[in-house]
Amino acid sequence: MNDTQRWNELAAQIAIDSIRATTAAGSGHPTSSMSAAHLLAVLFADHLRFDIKDPHYRGNDRFILSKGHAAPGLYATLKAAGAFDDDVLLTLRHEGSPLQGHPVPIPGFPWVDVATGSLGQGLAAGLGMALAMRMDEIDARVWVLLGDSEMAEGSVWEAMEAIAFHGAGNLTAIVDLNRLGQRGPTMHGWDADVFRDRALAFGWNAVEIDGHDVAQIDRAYREAADDGRPTMIVARTQKGRGVSFLADQEGWHGKAVPADRMDDAIAELGGMHDIRCTPPAPADLPERPAPPAPDVERPSYDGPVATRKAFGEALAWLATINRDVVVLDGEVGNSTYAEDAEKVAPERFVELYIAEQTMVGVQTGLQALGKIAFAATFGAFLTRAADQIRMAAIGRADLRLCGSHAGVSIGEDGPSQMAVEDLAQFRALNGSTVLYPADGASTVTIVEQMASLDGISYLRTTREATPVLYTQNEAFPIGGSKTVASSADDTATLVGAGVTVHESLVARELLAGDQIAARVIDCYSVKPIDAQTLRRALEETGTLVVVEDHRVEGGLGDAVLDALAATGPLTGRVVKLGVGEMPGSATPEQLRAWAGIDAASIAAAVRTALGR
Amino acid sequence: MNDTQRWNELAAQIAIDSIRATTAAGSGHPTSSMSAAHLLAVLFADHLRFDIKDPHYRGNDRFILSKGHAAPGLYATLKAAGAFDDDVLLTLRHEGSPLQGHPVPIPGFPWVDVATGSLGQGLAAGLGMALAMRMDEIDARVWVLLGDSEMAEGSVWEAMEAIAFHGAGNLTAIVDLNRLGQRGPTMHGWDADVFRDRALAFGWNAVEIDGHDVAQIDRAYREAADDGRPTMIVARTQKGRGVSFLADQEGWHGKAVPADRMDDAIAELGGMHDIRCTPPAPADLPERPAPPAPDVERPSYDGPVATRKAFGEALAWLATINRDVVVLDGEVGNSTYAEDAEKVAPERFVELYIAEQTMVGVQTGLQALGKIAFAATFGAFLTRAADQIRMAAIGRADLRLCGSHAGVSIGEDGPSQMAVEDLAQFRALNGSTVLYPADGASTVTIVEQMASLDGISYLRTTREATPVLYTQNEAFPIGGSKTVASSADDTATLVGAGVTVHESLVARELLAGDQIAARVIDCYSVKPIDAQTLRRALEETGTLVVVEDHRVEGGLGDAVLDALAATGPLTGRVVKLGVGEMPGSATPEQLRAWAGIDAASIAAAVRTALGR
Repeated sequence: MNDTQRWNELAAQIAIDSIRATTAAGSGHPTSSMSAAHLLAVLFADHLRFDIKDPHYRGNDRFILSKGHAAPGLYATLKAAGAFDDDVLLTLRHEGSPLQGHPVPIPGFPWVDVATGSLGQGLAAGLGMALAMRMDEIDARVWVLLGDSEMAEGSVWEAMEAIAFHGAGNLTAIVDLNRLGQRGPTMHGWDADVFRDRALAFGWNAVEIDGHDVAQIDRAYREAADDGRPTMIVARTQKGRGVSFLADQEGWHGKAVPADRMDDAIAELGGMHDIRCTPPAPADLPERPAPPAPDVERPSYDGPVATRKAFGEALAWLATINRDVVVLDGEVGNSTYAEDAEKVAPERFVELYIAEQTMVGVQTGLQALGKIAFAATFGAFLTRAADQIRMAAIGRADLRLCGSHAGVSIGEDGPSQMAVEDLAQFRALNGSTVLYPADGASTVTIVEQMASLDGISYLRTTREATPVLYTQNEAFPIGGSKTVASSADDTATLVGAGVTVHESLVARELLAGDQIAARVIDCYSVKPIDAQTLRRALEETGTLVVVEDHRVEGGLGDAVLDALAATGPLTGRVVKLGVGEMPGSATPEQLRAWAGIDAASIAAAVRTALGR
Repeated sequence: MNDTQRWNELAAQIAIDSIRATTAAGSGHPTSSMSAAHLLAVLFADHLRFDIKDPHYRGNDRFILSKGHAAPGLYATLKAAGAFDDDVLLTLRHEGSPLQGHPVPIPGFPWVDVATGSLGQGLAAGLGMALAMRMDEIDARVWVLLGDSEMAEGSVWEAMEAIAFHGAGNLTAIVDLNRLGQRGPTMHGWDADVFRDRALAFGWNAVEIDGHDVAQIDRAYREAADDGRPTMIVARTQKGRGVSFLADQEGWHGKAVPADRMDDAIAELGGMHDIRCTPPAPADLPERPAPPAPDVERPSYDGPVATRKAFGEALAWLATINRDVVVLDGEVGNSTYAEDAEKVAPERFVELYIAEQTMVGVQTGLQALGKIAFAATFGAFLTRAADQIRMAAIGRADLRLCGSHAGVSIGEDGPSQMAVEDLAQFRALNGSTVLYPADGASTVTIVEQMASLDGISYLRTTREATPVLYTQNEAFPIGGSKTVASSADDTATLVGAGVTVHESLVARELLAGDQIAARVIDCYSVKPIDAQTLRRALEETGTLVVVEDHRVEGGLGDAVLDALAATGPLTGRVVKLGVGEMPGSATPEQLRAWAGIDAASIAAAVRTALGR
């Protein structure tokens, strides 16, 4: 059998299996898989250098299905390559199946590296992988398959720019230009020139092909691998290709073929066979030279320091003791102090400029290949990557994120630069860890622990310097808290985190003047939270005043109430202080007073709660 | 005085006033303002057709400062145009000043239409304004000033595509190519060709100029106004232009000139004068023809219907009775049913394709010009526009958003398509309204009210049909709830919203079989929430089980606890049921059982809480 026959038979089987699996499921996207069948067949048969039995092998090429709804096509291809059997394929979309409606890397299913299904996210993750390969001097390549509808997402062009800027010639983008979106034709139909011209303008190589002509596909893949630039292959295709009642027809997006028409469809595609393919072998791994001896000391502080500065210094220290640590910046590294790491490990510092979506996508790709990737920007601007972070959580990615300049305490720059909803954003993510230290020593210890945390971990840092609270040898276990002041006579507990710990300590002094004894708890771990300590405080003191430099919704106050409710019946009073209106520009002190989260406001809230 | 002199003197004053205001504030971005001084001077003196005394006049041209940190430059220009006096200018960044660190439209300061300061958002808002002008046949133009750093944001290119697709020839983008970002040089420096080539590839007209040559600026503005296409003017500039120690120097981003160097800077710029300008007069408004008589009936339901379908039908009805209603789609209008409005008002239906950031930006621009703009996509994908929505809240914009396919109840498509953090996202926004109806009648009444709500309002809808609960004449006040089942013997209260109201009603039947009487409350208004009814229920029944098809963090459960804490001491038991792990693909029924939010799980939770 010649190559053309071999590829075409595999493509036909991919189309058939996409139909069979979705018809068995009663839902899914067969037609979006069929347009990509030839592209997948030639790639997996002869270009993707991949050990199907060892998908986590570091020398493998990587494939990302950015158009995640074509999952049936990917699963059909993986079946042909020997990843699993046909009976697994037919569990698609059933409860407990690893073959989800859109690809998700889950335990026991190692053939998917990053979750896709929210469009426009594959390229940035691909850049992260391409950079990881380069850092480790691995001769491997990243192949990203995109749909044409997702080319409308700005995140695609943001990643295109970053890929060209970083010279990721080991990345190839394949655009499945099937002309039809969910509800009708796309903006540009089969006008491949539009995408070629844009790719060229963004510094890429670009090729137009017929996406069902296997020889053209093969030639394009060769060109992509040979060209030093990242290459976009714009492939004109037909949605539902190969079946007369599906091909290039509207009204078939995300619809399974009815069971009574399935046999006709399979017959049109040449009938069932058992086609197998074996991807080419990956390259050997290079020797990793021994890392240089670390020459940065663990930071310690004996005076006030901004937690953002302590973050930067801790990160620089970590980067020298662990050569898998990579640091990503959104062109604010002199504000977040992520640039401290650049100074000691420039080869593992990646500047993504003002492109937060790409930054998080790159981070997701890096961690998929074993890197311990930290990324930092203003907490407010992590909102820009909220969907990428959401998808990373779905993909069980280990993201270590730092949001700086938290709360109204940023001051004069005003609300656009203030993170006041970030705790709500990160708390709501599955399996996330949310950390908000109040001083330098606790920040260092927490950053150190973040390097080994699973899932999404978020560190919230403050612009202003804050006083020393702790010694550098103190432990700050995830899920713990610190009771920084207490007495046997406490009739109220002040619960804070970050800057509000300091405001609470001042409030305690003010209250002492009124003969009111107040406990102060530093809830540096907002999620998981120290429920036992909080419940004991409520039971012992009767009143909790929770104060946060964050919106009143979704943050520390809600976390405390949740912890109390989860640990038994409620009894006592919980007062939440937080940002309840829209801030403007002013000094940090003025803004904390305005929001009612400064020491005087806290003390007043305690007096009111106690009827004093 | 000739034009050149006039423009240059105005530009010098803009630079001087940017320095004076920021030095008085002790912070801010003078150098980023100075690079744009000539661009602003020529625009406001002779091209922006704008009535400075009536900034909300619908016939005005509009200006958007997408590079919001150049706010001092904008304020200096507005001062010269007579908006306010020099003493106001010098209140920049002070508490209570309308002149915030980044531009914000606030009561009493009508010269800014949309909040900026998170980069890359101006163009999409500009498209919304350009479309509003076209819908109303107003001969006016939108001018958007961008920085070069923000060109790295994908949202810029996403908007570029949409602007070209919609043929918004009445929009001009001006790129202030000053070569320096926050921490160093930008990716492309002064290489204006890069941006020209990309603009051309995105279907725009493009012009390169020297951004300090007023004659070139004037000519480019004329060309932009004459060309039928949207035009990008790429202006090479110097950050800090005109002052020797600032011009094109690194290390001056976001820094005020020290007071002791201010006089030198002012002297280099030619010293202080009192230059004024008067923007050209705007066009007259066309007559608005009388709208056609509405021919769509208010929808009503006597059987099960999906709330997403009721949303679409209510929207179609609203579009026919109010000609200012505009409906935006992210290429999923056949899933959200926003396309029902397209069928009756195609001229006010805007297809943005898979571009959620642009969709929300366009919406923000439309509402700034008086449109009642609704936008809909899957709730999960509104995450993509989280930063745009955040900025809209800061800008006091009235966004009416619908997120469909909420919760695990979407079923087989899997977690990437599931909105399970959306209540947390929208609850945390200042002044937001969060609505989650459980049946068709309540949906229609709520959508009707959304048309007149201020701020960000969010409607959460469900994929599956849900049974009738209410009659079409019932009121659903914002901030209210419905007690859908109760008795004098209730020993527990089930609090739900959307699908979980129906699960709670079934759970109530199950519990009745165990001689446990349970109240059921439909919390269709998640924010504001009906605190009094919830508190009474806790006091009367002793136990609240709050159940939501959403993460356990930040949603209905937290809102209920917050309401209880805010209304007095806590006593009783509150059990929160929600999504606590990562879902996969399965049927809606399987997933609700898996999450522990189906009727059987609710009943079991009540039994456990009561020790039965």
